[in-house]
Amino acid sequence: MASTISTDLATALYAPRSIALVGASADPVKASSRPLAFLRASGYAGTVFPINRKGGELGGEPVYRTVADLATAPDHAFIMTPTASVLETVAECGQAGVRVATILSGGFGEAGPEGQALQERILATAAEYGLRLLGPNSLGVVNTHNGLTLTANAAFAEPDMPRGGLFVASQSGSMIGALLSRGAGRGIGFSRLISVGAEMDLSIGEVCAATLDDPEITGYLLFLETIRHAEGFRRFAYGAAERGKPVVAYKLGKTPMAAELAASHTGALAGEDAVASAFLADLGIVRVHTLDALIEGAPLVAAVPPRTPGRDRRVGVVTTTGGGAAMVVDQLGVHGIEVAPPSEDTLARMRDAGAAAEPGLITDLTLAGTRPEVMRAALDVLTTAPEFDLIIAVAGSSARHAPELAVAPIIDVASAGRAHHPIAAFIVPEAPEALRMLSAGGVPSFRTPEACADAIAASLNRLPARATRSTAVGGVPTLVDEAHSYRILEAAGIPVAPYVVLTIDDLLADGAPELAYPVVVKALSDQLPHKSDVGGVVLGVGSDQDLVGAACRIRADVARLADVTVDDVLVQPMVAAVGEVLVGYRVDPVTGPLVVVAAGGTLAEVYADRSIRMAPVDQGTAREMLTEITAFEVLRGYRGAPEGDLDALVAVVVAVSQLAECAEIDEAEINPLLVRPAGQGVAAVDAVVRVYGESPVTKGSNTPC
Amino acid sequence: MASTISTDLATALYAPRSIALVGASADPVKASSRPLAFLRASGYAGTVFPINRKGGELGGEPVYRTVADLATAPDHAFIMTPTASVLETVAECGQAGVRVATILSGGFGEAGPEGQALQERILATAAEYGLRLLGPNSLGVVNTHNGLTLTANAAFAEPDMPRGGLFVASQSGSMIGALLSRGAGRGIGFSRLISVGAEMDLSIGEVCAATLDDPEITGYLLFLETIRHAEGFRRFAYGAAERGKPVVAYKLGKTPMAAELAASHTGALAGEDAVASAFLADLGIVRVHTLDALIEGAPLVAAVPPRTPGRDRRVGVVTTTGGGAAMVVDQLGVHGIEVAPPSEDTLARMRDAGAAAEPGLITDLTLAGTRPEVMRAALDVLTTAPEFDLIIAVAGSSARHAPELAVAPIIDVASAGRAHHPIAAFIVPEAPEALRMLSAGGVPSFRTPEACADAIAASLNRLPARATRSTAVGGVPTLVDEAHSYRILEAAGIPVAPYVVLTIDDLLADGAPELAYPVVVKALSDQLPHKSDVGGVVLGVGSDQDLVGAACRIRADVARLADVTVDDVLVQPMVAAVGEVLVGYRVDPVTGPLVVVAAGGTLAEVYADRSIRMAPVDQGTAREMLTEITAFEVLRGYRGAPEGDLDALVAVVVAVSQLAECAEIDEAEINPLLVRPAGQGVAAVDAVVRVYGESPVTKGSNTPC
Repeated sequence: MASTISTDLATALYAPRSIALVGASADPVKASSRPLAFLRASGYAGTVFPINRKGGELGGEPVYRTVADLATAPDHAFIMTPTASVLETVAECGQAGVRVATILSGGFGEAGPEGQALQERILATAAEYGLRLLGPNSLGVVNTHNGLTLTANAAFAEPDMPRGGLFVASQSGSMIGALLSRGAGRGIGFSRLISVGAEMDLSIGEVCAATLDDPEITGYLLFLETIRHAEGFRRFAYGAAERGKPVVAYKLGKTPMAAELAASHTGALAGEDAVASAFLADLGIVRVHTLDALIEGAPLVAAVPPRTPGRDRRVGVVTTTGGGAAMVVDQLGVHGIEVAPPSEDTLARMRDAGAAAEPGLITDLTLAGTRPEVMRAALDVLTTAPEFDLIIAVAGSSARHAPELAVAPIIDVASAGRAHHPIAAFIVPEAPEALRMLSAGGVPSFRTPEACADAIAASLNRLPARATRSTAVGGVPTLVDEAHSYRILEAAGIPVAPYVVLTIDDLLADGAPELAYPVVVKALSDQLPHKSDVGGVVLGVGSDQDLVGAACRIRADVARLADVTVDDVLVQPMVAAVGEVLVGYRVDPVTGPLVVVAAGGTLAEVYADRSIRMAPVDQGTAREMLTEITAFEVLRGYRGAPEGDLDALVAVVVAVSQLAECAEIDEAEINPLLVRPAGQGVAAVDAVVRVYGESPVTKGSNTPC
Repeated sequence: MASTISTDLATALYAPRSIALVGASADPVKASSRPLAFLRASGYAGTVFPINRKGGELGGEPVYRTVADLATAPDHAFIMTPTASVLETVAECGQAGVRVATILSGGFGEAGPEGQALQERILATAAEYGLRLLGPNSLGVVNTHNGLTLTANAAFAEPDMPRGGLFVASQSGSMIGALLSRGAGRGIGFSRLISVGAEMDLSIGEVCAATLDDPEITGYLLFLETIRHAEGFRRFAYGAAERGKPVVAYKLGKTPMAAELAASHTGALAGEDAVASAFLADLGIVRVHTLDALIEGAPLVAAVPPRTPGRDRRVGVVTTTGGGAAMVVDQLGVHGIEVAPPSEDTLARMRDAGAAAEPGLITDLTLAGTRPEVMRAALDVLTTAPEFDLIIAVAGSSARHAPELAVAPIIDVASAGRAHHPIAAFIVPEAPEALRMLSAGGVPSFRTPEACADAIAASLNRLPARATRSTAVGGVPTLVDEAHSYRILEAAGIPVAPYVVLTIDDLLADGAPELAYPVVVKALSDQLPHKSDVGGVVLGVGSDQDLVGAACRIRADVARLADVTVDDVLVQPMVAAVGEVLVGYRVDPVTGPLVVVAAGGTLAEVYADRSIRMAPVDQGTAREMLTEITAFEVLRGYRGAPEGDLDALVAVVVAVSQLAECAEIDEAEINPLLVRPAGQGVAAVDAVVRVYGESPVTKGSNTPC
């Protein structure tokens, strides 16, 4: 439900009745000359006030010297002045009662401590007046439906670009222009395009959320460099999910090289890309990996319902051209999406409907399929066949030579309401007209096999948006020792291998107790997160005498290597297992609580073989996480080896993820969790836990918080 | 050097003076009506003989009843008759003296034993007359330079498609049409397009090789489903490499799903995709993974010299639009290509030349770079800077609004002869005119960041074409026992762990000898390729008594589980190592000898972590193979672990690969090869070798063959 405030914000951002262009220039070479020219060219019907300290006139219009000179406050000010004068201009805008100011200049948060200090002052000044700020480094806002071309992006000089229902928000200003023209080239128009810049105040989530109830907007495309303001992002995503409006994101930073680039470019720490992926997925936002899929993917996302974890989705492929279809099948395979053949029953129904095809993975109608009634009959059967979740129609050269005939059956079946499954179209030849018709007909359609498979995989993998907590408690968490960590884990219902804590002085005085040797002996300390690196762990201790020796050695080694005094050791039996697993929980400073599962051991670490989700997760999701870890093949009875107790592992993943309910816990990593054969359970044999303030279980609770 | 035969073949294929259209139809709905219409529309100047059993006339031209009725033999016959009459038609063509017959029909080799038998008879008949066959399942041949539109592909109905220098050969017939139109959409024209079908006789290599000396042809694009006729492929690739003509390939079958599809579609066993990749790489053929890169990549391949294994290639990026450039950087990172920043010296030279930029991974000229003289100055410096091997120019919205200004500096610098490094261009907005100008100017240019990075990575990774042996000896190889395998490996200079062969009966009678226990005891037999699966291996045998027991148990277990009588055991000491590696050699039935290196152990097998090359390989290549294996991180001193003896491992990989010189050896797999700490060497502790005929080392040779 849109509040008054967000409606006000939406008006000021996307439908301002009046605009001040602060720092507007008469020099056509300068970017600051563009907004006035664009607004006039696109027929913006509101009032525009050019403002420049020099005064004079601009394109026949009088130029005001300051915002203070205006008789009425404009809804929106576009600040194009140099960095040094932005604070003053923001103050003037605030005083005058401007509602939103967009800042074009850079040199704030990303420009070191001085820029950061200036940014703080600007934010404080704006807050004082209730003025909201877009940017800095924002190239502006465009609304194609009302002529608001309030941007310094040269790409908007072009007249007659197509309008449409998609909303574009980009952290990279230049990309709003590139997306506009690429969309036009594909017959896809946009409703609003906004360059959010470095999100000093207004976040990408907030500017999107302000339009959720706008009937002109059918879906959202996000071009991201990083994740900022997670809470605003979440609220927007939940709103979009509620209204069934698709959100598709392309994010830079898949590789550390580009992540670094995004960080230096925007002043934001780009964070770990895998965490961003988990965050977006948790919000039901579809992340694509090709630029074309960002532009072409939204209608498909709108058509494919969110999936249930653990259930396979199967794609049927119908075509008139085997080679072209095979490219899509191959790419879908790369994305792990299963293409399925039609059943015998389906083939029989197709035959009866006049669309006979040979059995096979691809339903190839051959030349007969270029007749619209044959393709229509085939699609009618395939989109109602129970063995599929989505149908891809791959069209050949007829889509170029007779586009109306080639695409009509696809549009007909997709829009008739009979189809149970969504249809996507891939056109093998160059056929811009066919693609335009499909887009106009609301059929998700793709120019390349790569974008087609990318969008299909991303859509089929979309999860329902979930409401989870986003922020950390803050402050500096402290490490607790291993025994203390075990008490927290046990309180959370996580099995821990038996352990005993022994005081080294007592051991030296009285000798070791009777234990089931061999055992592991470990330094017990809240000062040693990596105790094995500093001689704090001795494995395979076989007797009581050896135990005394091991404790002695640990005390000496840790004192020498880590300068930490160890008084106690924690002793555990050596536990046999079929595999070692890492299960971790941590609170990401931007996106919030995460659960991580990874294979244990050096080799798995080298492979970075892991699965990440926002926490908490349910059993189905935990089970799916295990399927994403290649090394767990060995826990599934690989080559006759005994199966691991995956049910017990799932229960631990769920339990660890539920630490998200304990604000006091910042991090909890079990490494390793030993997985015993099926039915015999799992056991934590080491753990690192960090908490805020007083540790929860010391307060006498029998839950972890 | 083109022989007379290939010139004859080239004439008959691409410039026939006369053509017979056998089975030509008057019904415009039928594919067999198309070639006559297309030839007439495209102005083919030679003679065309429509042939149909029904006689009559076609488009005003007389129809002959059989090829035998023609006064002179046509150079080329296009056989469009039903499968059952193809043999008869081929015989008629042969008798008449036709030189090449293209077969449109399917239903031969891929259609089971009957089709296979028919294919054999057709091949024998054609061979009798010296008639060469293209197809079956061929959609025909097109030469855009002489109006030869000899195809049933509907895509060629279109007039005025651009001509160009690229040769297209496709195993999928429909793709020649799709590539034609997609090329046209990008301003890229083709010289010849040929659908090779199932390559019953003429192979894709042979039809390409026939045009190597044709000055109209600047490069080759291959659309592959599988690899057939490796020898013809090799000859073509060597010829193309000699002449500096680039060959770019897109191959289906990256996933088993699509490989299966290709197999069922064409009747060929698609083989292992990784083997095809190694084969193409060995021939200096650039394999791309996006369809756009197949169309756009050839000029880049032509501009980038083949690399030296082991040397890093670095890419410099210059742009006017940071966000657009970051997409390419990100994608290059995914492909493992390093983007490097300009040096201080380079930045100073740029500044002096009037093209100042801030230091950073991307050289961002910002708005100033839209001035042609600034971009020209920057490119002049960057393309001569020693820290780079290739420069990417990323153009923003100016490429759409002022294409001539945006692309002129790129074309100028690329064609002026001053540049030491090739330039590639990526255009961020939709800008077809800029792309067309760049293509016309010979500058490799790309529409999507994905295709750009794909083509750059593939070009930078291109190896020099190599002449290697292609075919297996044939026959059925036989397994030799482990001791015998070791003698072959030792003769090849490969270190083997010490071993002794003991007869079980003697052990039982006399007891075990003095050995350095603990040892491994293994069944010695040429019947047991997987001896550990049938109780044939006992590890950690600690004493002479245990050795007798182990031998006894092995005999009993193997007899029970594998029904093989074991008389002898092979005994080896337990060897300590920092890692286990698989090094294998085998002769692929299509492509020839291969060497494989993989991490040892179950987990590495689960990860399919390996590197494949055509054999033999030199030290540089062997060393590079090791860098491709993720698990070998642990042999490189990961987290303070001891480094493995990689030099010794490299020597073994080279030695194993040199088994390619021994035609008698079909397969040799060392698994595991134990890798000791640096300086301490490696040792084979198990091996499986298969040989043809009599084993080479039993002949008394001290080399493996």
